[in-house]
Amino acid sequence: MSRKPTLAVVGATGAVGAVMLQILSQRADVWGEIRLVASPRSAGRKLAVRGEETEVVALSEAALTGVDVALFLVPAPVAAEWAPVAVSKGAVVVDNSAAFRLDPGVPLVVPEINPHAVRLRPRGIVASPGCTTLAMIVTVGALHAEFCVDELVVSALQAVSGAGQCGVEALRTQLALVADTELGTGPGDVRRAIGDGLGPFPAPTALNVVPWSGELAEDGWSSEELAIRAETRKLLDLPELRVSATCVRVPVLTSHSVSVHARFEHEVTVERAHDILATSPGVVLFDDPEAGEFPTPADVVGTDPTWVGRVRRAMDDPRALDLFVCGDNLRKGAALNTAQLAEAIAREF
Amino acid sequence: MSRKPTLAVVGATGAVGAVMLQILSQRADVWGEIRLVASPRSAGRKLAVRGEETEVVALSEAALTGVDVALFLVPAPVAAEWAPVAVSKGAVVVDNSAAFRLDPGVPLVVPEINPHAVRLRPRGIVASPGCTTLAMIVTVGALHAEFCVDELVVSALQAVSGAGQCGVEALRTQLALVADTELGTGPGDVRRAIGDGLGPFPAPTALNVVPWSGELAEDGWSSEELAIRAETRKLLDLPELRVSATCVRVPVLTSHSVSVHARFEHEVTVERAHDILATSPGVVLFDDPEAGEFPTPADVVGTDPTWVGRVRRAMDDPRALDLFVCGDNLRKGAALNTAQLAEAIAREF
Repeated sequence: MSRKPTLAVVGATGAVGAVMLQILSQRADVWGEIRLVASPRSAGRKLAVRGEETEVVALSEAALTGVDVALFLVPAPVAAEWAPVAVSKGAVVVDNSAAFRLDPGVPLVVPEINPHAVRLRPRGIVASPGCTTLAMIVTVGALHAEFCVDELVVSALQAVSGAGQCGVEALRTQLALVADTELGTGPGDVRRAIGDGLGPFPAPTALNVVPWSGELAEDGWSSEELAIRAETRKLLDLPELRVSATCVRVPVLTSHSVSVHARFEHEVTVERAHDILATSPGVVLFDDPEAGEFPTPADVVGTDPTWVGRVRRAMDDPRALDLFVCGDNLRKGAALNTAQLAEAIAREF
Repeated sequence: MSRKPTLAVVGATGAVGAVMLQILSQRADVWGEIRLVASPRSAGRKLAVRGEETEVVALSEAALTGVDVALFLVPAPVAAEWAPVAVSKGAVVVDNSAAFRLDPGVPLVVPEINPHAVRLRPRGIVASPGCTTLAMIVTVGALHAEFCVDELVVSALQAVSGAGQCGVEALRTQLALVADTELGTGPGDVRRAIGDGLGPFPAPTALNVVPWSGELAEDGWSSEELAIRAETRKLLDLPELRVSATCVRVPVLTSHSVSVHARFEHEVTVERAHDILATSPGVVLFDDPEAGEFPTPADVVGTDPTWVGRVRRAMDDPRALDLFVCGDNLRKGAALNTAQLAEAIAREF
């Protein structure tokens, strides 16, 4: 019998790390030792994983020695510095940050889409896509396998936890402030009520939607919008795919939603799309508006699959489908996909 | 000098009626008598318009006699019944409901788009479009005049006041309930917190977005989504225009936002689009993300124009623009457009 590999969770004390420890405790246990690693200021804390209190150790060369698979759940600059160190110590790295996603020497992998790509890793690193791409890609990929996608126009409605725990705290604080204020219908009422409590966002998120996330990239596009395009092209191996994405932050704590208009090379029918989505791994079809069945972020939060509903064929284009998908940005959008990739690598041992 | 016509405001005590009385008090005064009309249970109330307390009278044939222009700000069934009565008494009707919008004998008019259509009214009725169409049409129409629009893919983020005052009350109640609850990250947490307080919506609106508004129409499309398509085609006089619209209710009190992907017959540039939008009546261009300038509903509420930002040329299609527009659904989206139409008719007297 093959030995059970050693796993390191780097960034165990963060928001995604907390979800990862839950996930590792819930899924089939393929791991020998699980080592929890974080910044020096979190070292010594004890966190539960697989029912055992485990002491967090500080990120260091020593902490990465003797590790078979290292999950990196840290900001991109930390991953860029330390992932190569882990590789040099013999580990395979699965990175959840943006540091390596578009690196030609690093596969970008979603197990439901391109599972075999995980084995082609010349740099010893496998990357997991961003949470907004992950909210839609399993659904789009399943339809692509049948109809061949040609163009995507998407509007992503992003939860505040996509900006980290500080995003969650900002929305909670803002909601308390607007609740205590008798808001009129004048411009700036919400801004006045929340004062300097914008948190990580460029405008109020309470009682508002904000058409901006990431940094300014090129020609007015944000980094997050271009990332959705680049990651989708790489995941589907369609380097010329036409993608227009608009990111909008919405007052939702966790779970991203995406309004998708997908055009295909072949004609589509709702019936066939339903059949595909109903039988695709990682997808739940929830599409009966008359019965109140369509996904919403508050209903899907905490669950693993991508939920899809509102499946319609475009009235004026027999090759296009409109869909609405929701997925938990901390689970499949981050921790779960990373854990699935680590498990795929564990099967090599 | 021509005489000043008599105006009746039918539905003066509703949410749109309240905004209409403000607007009539703020704009150039072209009216003689302004008569306030509402349901019998509101008769006798006094409301301020043009600085004068004015008694509300009950809707009746007598209340519509001697009226030159009648604004209908009432539900579609009431408008369907009473607008023809007003016409039979000699009034021109401007209707804000959906009752006549798609009637071939009734012009659908936005003054910035098709002002001359207001004079061609064989039934004596002029219709104002729905609030979601109005949130985007002035912007799209201005760009169409230069580039010739070919296809629209839009995701509309609709404020709760689009569902009436009951929508506003439901969101306020729900926000208070979720504020008092320590919400976890489990599915259904928000539903449990708000209990049976859904109001007019099929799912929670607090801490959520809901991809549904209107009724089920055909092939999975909602009535509101198909209305955006039909109204846009009629307003732009493009009966074959391809339109895919998805409506999503968001936890915003007032002002609709629309994420627009517009494809044109001609190539576009952001520079030329900026020039057009910066000089179009009824439009404010607010587009400098680096300086934090993009429209949000909380910032534009209470203002008259359509605000537009995030103007980008599609990375993969030189004929397509992506935009984000916001407009107050109670002002331009309802009361203001109706008032503008009434003023255009008043100029005939």
